[in-house]
Amino acid sequence: MNDDSQQIPVKLPEPTLRRLPWYLAYLKLQKDQGVEFVSSTQISKEINVDASQIAKDLSFINISGKTRVGYEVNSLVDVLEDFLGFTKTHKAFIFGAGSLGAALLHDNGLEQFGLQIVAAFDVNPKKINTVINNIPVYDLKEFERYRKELGVNIGVLTVPVDKAQQVADQMIEGGLRAIWNFTPFRIRVPHDIVVQNTSIYAHLAVMFNRLNCIQD
Amino acid sequence: MNDDSQQIPVKLPEPTLRRLPWYLAYLKLQKDQGVEFVSSTQISKEINVDASQIAKDLSFINISGKTRVGYEVNSLVDVLEDFLGFTKTHKAFIFGAGSLGAALLHDNGLEQFGLQIVAAFDVNPKKINTVINNIPVYDLKEFERYRKELGVNIGVLTVPVDKAQQVADQMIEGGLRAIWNFTPFRIRVPHDIVVQNTSIYAHLAVMFNRLNCIQD
Repeated sequence: MNDDSQQIPVKLPEPTLRRLPWYLAYLKLQKDQGVEFVSSTQISKEINVDASQIAKDLSFINISGKTRVGYEVNSLVDVLEDFLGFTKTHKAFIFGAGSLGAALLHDNGLEQFGLQIVAAFDVNPKKINTVINNIPVYDLKEFERYRKELGVNIGVLTVPVDKAQQVADQMIEGGLRAIWNFTPFRIRVPHDIVVQNTSIYAHLAVMFNRLNCIQD
Repeated sequence: MNDDSQQIPVKLPEPTLRRLPWYLAYLKLQKDQGVEFVSSTQISKEINVDASQIAKDLSFINISGKTRVGYEVNSLVDVLEDFLGFTKTHKAFIFGAGSLGAALLHDNGLEQFGLQIVAAFDVNPKKINTVINNIPVYDLKEFERYRKELGVNIGVLTVPVDKAQQVADQMIEGGLRAIWNFTPFRIRVPHDIVVQNTSIYAHLAVMFNRLNCIQD
């Protein structure tokens, strides 16, 4: 066992990891309202997930409610934030300071959830050496040097689709360990590289389809 | 049958709808390179989805490949873009011109995928009547009037978590039919309202967890 922390990294199922932030958001609201205890049944009613599923999800992180009173709100908020990695600062680079890249550079909310964008990289001379929302944009060629200097492990991929694989290869070659891929392109990476796909335009397609079906 | 269009809205499974944009992104690259035909096996190799799954997904939109030659790239791109709703313009409002809302206002890429943000609404006097990336920010109180005037059906929810449900209720009462929810709060809505949850911070949690597990 490690002296600094009792927490051993556990690889949770992705659906659980995606639900935990929902519980956290709800619990923080309860905390702000001074609520001390909540049961999984109460959480369930509010966020539309089965109470048994909630109890199961929370058991993954070694949290169990007390009979009759339920979960202690304050400590559950702390444990969840900590477990989800939102209390640590993870430095990251953005690759591609185009439309979506620039948009993410404007989202200060990322930092509240543990992601600190420290620089962006681009190949466009008009963008290189500019500053967006106080974050510098550098020449892509200089990425490796800055990575070593700043100790960054995470890259956010927001380049055009036709450059996605090439820039992803460059990111990995330069030493990044995780890629948050916002492009709709399915990049291929070695097995020890983490890829998180967040294709917001694919969600748009789901929404348009559902809207069409309802209106007709 | 409708004279204007032979396409009858079909409610596709969400996983299929999320994969179709991946195929589209890949096919557009092939089109740009002058490729005329691709097989599901080729698509499969490139984007890491089973060839049989790809064929099944594409059969939902009445597309089938020809023996030996496969799918015709140009027409498949057209049909997919059209089917996914990316070729139509869907007007939308943003609710909450804070950090994430402002970020989305900067993303001109949304328009390429069929979503045109025509205005944002906020309650902060400092934001009301400003302009972000050429898009006006109005007082939330004026939303209903603008909705009727501009014929908008879609709202993007980017308010703080503790206002999510209240503003969602207001959006529905004001006549919106679909809510693209970027907050981690699980809003409750009547059954005839479309909700698409895109919690980018939840994806961050998945990435942090995977990164921890790999590094240890």
